[in-house]
Amino acid sequence: MTNKFKAYKKEFEISYTSGAYATFELLKKRTSDAECVYIHSDYRDDDGLSELCNALNVPLVQSDKAFSILNQKGNSYVLGVFRKYADALAVDEPHIVLVNPSDMGNLGTIIRTMAGLNLRNLAVIEPAADVWNPKTVRASMGSLFHIRQCVYASFDEYQTQYPLHTLFPFMLTGSIAPEDAPPCPLFTLIFGNEASGLCEAFAHIGQSVKIPLSTDLDSFNLSIAAGIGMYAFARNNNLV
Amino acid sequence: MTNKFKAYKKEFEISYTSGAYATFELLKKRTSDAECVYIHSDYRDDDGLSELCNALNVPLVQSDKAFSILNQKGNSYVLGVFRKYADALAVDEPHIVLVNPSDMGNLGTIIRTMAGLNLRNLAVIEPAADVWNPKTVRASMGSLFHIRQCVYASFDEYQTQYPLHTLFPFMLTGSIAPEDAPPCPLFTLIFGNEASGLCEAFAHIGQSVKIPLSTDLDSFNLSIAAGIGMYAFARNNNLV
Repeated sequence: MTNKFKAYKKEFEISYTSGAYATFELLKKRTSDAECVYIHSDYRDDDGLSELCNALNVPLVQSDKAFSILNQKGNSYVLGVFRKYADALAVDEPHIVLVNPSDMGNLGTIIRTMAGLNLRNLAVIEPAADVWNPKTVRASMGSLFHIRQCVYASFDEYQTQYPLHTLFPFMLTGSIAPEDAPPCPLFTLIFGNEASGLCEAFAHIGQSVKIPLSTDLDSFNLSIAAGIGMYAFARNNNLV
Repeated sequence: MTNKFKAYKKEFEISYTSGAYATFELLKKRTSDAECVYIHSDYRDDDGLSELCNALNVPLVQSDKAFSILNQKGNSYVLGVFRKYADALAVDEPHIVLVNPSDMGNLGTIIRTMAGLNLRNLAVIEPAADVWNPKTVRASMGSLFHIRQCVYASFDEYQTQYPLHTLFPFMLTGSIAPEDAPPCPLFTLIFGNEASGLCEAFAHIGQSVKIPLSTDLDSFNLSIAAGIGMYAFARNNNLV
């Protein structure tokens, strides 16, 4: 195995799950991409991890050393190593587009919320936080393995590939509330960067949406805005 | 000033804001509780901070040393020092109750979302993350100073003080979706701990609510669940 016991870097072809929960998600949803699983000598296997690894033919290795190097938070007894994989979005399902998200916690939380709302296709427009970073995987609670995700160099590149989706950019200058959007089977919800939102050009594509908010606040946290917006669309279109 | 240049501890009678945005919120909303403001020698006062401090009679001190000790993230050039204050919830306004929240990031994010939805009363049931911790204040983006908040030793203690509110516990076993709850001017939304949710006893008080979610996910992140739930109630009751 390459990159054994090295702290994660973006250029690696592998990444890590930390914690039993996310590692189970990896093994169940992306079996063929799981390279191996490390367990700490203090891990009590109450959930059948070693049985599952055995059944799936994924090597299970006990090594406390792996945890001292790979597990920066130091509060996990299970680590999964997986190969990054190429994904394509489904052309006939709704999409979420994040334009230049900068925070891995937000990115992972949004992925977790997507999985909870049966929204399974994510386009990330670069520059952006690393979808594969163990921090993102951790914040997603392993939901990364439930969705399809793809990185694009520009929004135009995304849109050229999926010209049939109806676009809903979320903007402070948007004109309708998310729950008032008409049902629409093939929608793309677009959210901007944490600090700067979407640039004004997005106001001229599709139907802009604004989450009503108090004059006291400049904007919601990105993962909250995405959560509120995605929930409204998921409900209006009977996804949950 | 007491506790000068000491890293924050829960038992302190003071706490800190970090960053210009949260410090402006402190100065504007809780002027009399602001003890002083520190600025780094690299700070460029484009927003009139020194003028505002002068007008409000809050001392402004340039000290790089304060930042090396108080500013653990190291990416802020403004720090506010404020005295913790006693607050009481408004009896005639909706309330949010967080039972044993454990994560300061979630707590601060929920406070920010509350301010954005004109929900201005927060009860925190202990044991719980520290509302005053600079990390909570930071995650709230200074919205802590826009709301009333009070800590209670138990949910019973809270309920005894506010017996007229209609209770809506959010539970995975809840029976209605948040947007289907009837309009209700005096509501209390109750959210449980990140890992354990609300205990079963809450199913027998008020009207339990469940945010619909995919079978793929155990639960939403707490701040996301609270965001979705609070938004639905705020909209149903014309708060935003």
